[in-house]
Amino acid sequence: MAATFLSFEGIDGSGKSTQARTLAETLRGLGHNVCLTREPGGSKGAEEIRRLVLEGEADRWSTETELLLFTAARRDHLEKTIRPGLARGEIVITDRFADSSRIYQGLTRGELRQTVDRLHDLMIGTEPDLTLLIDIDPALGLARATARAGTEMRFEDMGLAVQEKARTGFLALAVAHPKRFRVIDGARPANEVAFDVMTAVMIHLSTR
Amino acid sequence: MAATFLSFEGIDGSGKSTQARTLAETLRGLGHNVCLTREPGGSKGAEEIRRLVLEGEADRWSTETELLLFTAARRDHLEKTIRPGLARGEIVITDRFADSSRIYQGLTRGELRQTVDRLHDLMIGTEPDLTLLIDIDPALGLARATARAGTEMRFEDMGLAVQEKARTGFLALAVAHPKRFRVIDGARPANEVAFDVMTAVMIHLSTR
Repeated sequence: MAATFLSFEGIDGSGKSTQARTLAETLRGLGHNVCLTREPGGSKGAEEIRRLVLEGEADRWSTETELLLFTAARRDHLEKTIRPGLARGEIVITDRFADSSRIYQGLTRGELRQTVDRLHDLMIGTEPDLTLLIDIDPALGLARATARAGTEMRFEDMGLAVQEKARTGFLALAVAHPKRFRVIDGARPANEVAFDVMTAVMIHLSTR
Repeated sequence: MAATFLSFEGIDGSGKSTQARTLAETLRGLGHNVCLTREPGGSKGAEEIRRLVLEGEADRWSTETELLLFTAARRDHLEKTIRPGLARGEIVITDRFADSSRIYQGLTRGELRQTVDRLHDLMIGTEPDLTLLIDIDPALGLARATARAGTEMRFEDMGLAVQEKARTGFLALAVAHPKRFRVIDGARPANEVAFDVMTAVMIHLSTR
């Protein structure tokens, strides 16, 4: 069974984390070895970096420093979790990967977007084989995210206008990388979304 | 009084930290506003990243992740300490800067050296106006470093062969950037070294 690397992307409250978990459970039920992980975090060191970035005041780090910290976390995640999982022949599913940096750090100031891409090429280099973009109206996403508000409200705090820009950014990425991306309407009931996710993954696995 | 950015570099035990402090005190005694700082660290956020990198097992981070964390710390240090100090017209003196990354991270694996330079150009960009390289025989440096061994023994642990390579690396950098570097023999008594440091700095300040 060949290894594959899947990522879920989307704005906060899109339901992508639920969908990642459901996909992992479904694939395990079918006998696949699955590694379910997330960013920022996904390895012991990366989780420590995640805490350093997300806990504390919102403006304690500049966008550039935050980008470097997220990239350090991603590098650790890649080395300690993703690559070993793929080497064991597993289906690695990550809740967010580099596309989130492209959108969230690249969005703050337009000229940073190129820096995000260059830093990724220099220090990470890896892309998922398939990216499932769970697309949703930011008003609905924000309502969902607010309903489960915890301590990590940094990104959810950004408000509707920013989430709207993030949504547009994700859709533009999907248009730019049509082979890697599948855009799935996340506004529907979770089981309907899960069905479309599973369909996209089965087609990917069977046509590689 | 025009601001200037000075760095001290050298292997562990070279006496550069002592020399940085002495220079800061001497310049303050002459009426200069001085900001004395260090790397990794030098700002609140950078010190937190420093702790994350240096405390813990020696192999918990790969060289690439460590490089990203040090660069994140450097970016914070630059934004929160160095640039504000220069903007206030101060003489900013840092104990280590980007040259240390070039040597220590670049040294582990040869092909990383280019990555260090590219990452610096992309995310930092700033170089000191003058770099004081305190040069010393690694055997003497190691003996000094071991004598004041604390919890942060990561780099000192590397042993003589590695320090020898680091010394050669620093000297090669000085040869490559003769306008920025002054090489000072650190094997002599501290007051003699301090005299040469002060001479180099006074020449730099008076001929800019």
